[in-house]
Amino acid sequence: MLLVRREIGDVLRELRLQKGHTLRQVAGRASVALGYLSEIERGQKEASSEILYSIAEALDVPISQIMRDVSDRLAAIENVSIPDTVPAEFLISYTSQVQPVSN
Amino acid sequence: MLLVRREIGDVLRELRLQKGHTLRQVAGRASVALGYLSEIERGQKEASSEILYSIAEALDVPISQIMRDVSDRLAAIENVSIPDTVPAEFLISYTSQVQPVSN
Repeated sequence: MLLVRREIGDVLRELRLQKGHTLRQVAGRASVALGYLSEIERGQKEASSEILYSIAEALDVPISQIMRDVSDRLAAIENVSIPDTVPAEFLISYTSQVQPVSN
Repeated sequence: MLLVRREIGDVLRELRLQKGHTLRQVAGRASVALGYLSEIERGQKEASSEILYSIAEALDVPISQIMRDVSDRLAAIENVSIPDTVPAEFLISYTSQVQPVSN
């Protein structure tokens, strides 16, 4: 069974390590018990929405980015390809600067 | 405070209505109490990872897609733009089929 909390835990730990923070630092800033944060990172406890918000704040990362990383990891496991939207600026630049090569 | 469960609830309800299912149908398939599913959809209860998995199965939607929709909604609220990755196939097709117009 694909458990979202495991991917959330992995993403939170990865972001924390990327930022060079210790569990203690993030737990302190988020006002979460260190042992609880550790269990969340290991995918053993569900983080409530309130706690997720506090941890995102403590990591200085938008919650949307955390959930996007979670979604990307789940998609890789589910072997699902979610079509990206192509930004409008790119389409404008594409059509104005390039043209098909005629065969 | 930005609460992930509210966005999850909205996404689940939207997907259910898109598929033309009633609360009763999805609750039955997911083996979740109807009142509990209703509270999840209204963002009043956190769904555990196990229940989220069951609901995703009942809706026949990958969990990654649900979390992607949640992330997109959060990004709109946070006013965050998450860069899309351009699929490799597109890059290959781009470089092999088109070339810059010379000025």
